[in-house]
Amino acid sequence: MDPDAVSKAFVEHYYSTFDTSRANLGTLYQDASMLTFEGQKFQGAQNIVAKLASLPFEQCKHNISTVDCQPSGPAGGMLVFVSGNLQLAGEQHALKFSQMFHLMPTPQGSFYVFNDIFRLNYA
Amino acid sequence: MDPDAVSKAFVEHYYSTFDTSRANLGTLYQDASMLTFEGQKFQGAQNIVAKLASLPFEQCKHNISTVDCQPSGPAGGMLVFVSGNLQLAGEQHALKFSQMFHLMPTPQGSFYVFNDIFRLNYA
Repeated sequence: MDPDAVSKAFVEHYYSTFDTSRANLGTLYQDASMLTFEGQKFQGAQNIVAKLASLPFEQCKHNISTVDCQPSGPAGGMLVFVSGNLQLAGEQHALKFSQMFHLMPTPQGSFYVFNDIFRLNYA
Repeated sequence: MDPDAVSKAFVEHYYSTFDTSRANLGTLYQDASMLTFEGQKFQGAQNIVAKLASLPFEQCKHNISTVDCQPSGPAGGMLVFVSGNLQLAGEQHALKFSQMFHLMPTPQGSFYVFNDIFRLNYA
């Protein structure tokens, strides 16, 4: 497994799903998963997806600037650190954001998101 | 242990040490520690501190905007996600940055930095 390839594939899958049908992101989270979104904390796939689905915009497009990854320890997890910008439909200026994911392996050989922290980078 | 209090204390200690004597940051890392700095990868306390010490500025001041933290799993680690700006001596404009740390517990009841990822957020 090439960690850089896995993290790049994850990032592409995550944001393309977010930008087309974010209610489908639930399969990437589990009951123990955590999201901190602009300082607000949520736990569990259901609560996390409810938060993402409730964001006050319909259409958006994430453009990724950088993706960094590191193994997180003996449990086989992987840290993925993303920067980019978020274009909302009807808004002139894109919003810059940073986000980190901690991916943990599943018994099926895939990964799920255990930790997710998102912040807009205000100018 | 209150994770928010620990992460806040860590962040204050880390950046005040960075801004006054960054060669002393080595005690916060161990041999297995990883740093990804603007996409460049370093491993081990010695290599990490050598990189930080070699950065092409003498004086700087980190101003922290946000600190988010989450437990990283059963090993007792903690993820700390920071945003802020970095003022370099003699530069008019501060640089925005995001940084994440994965803190792991030591047998002595303290924490060391296992993962460290730093990115400037260019406008």
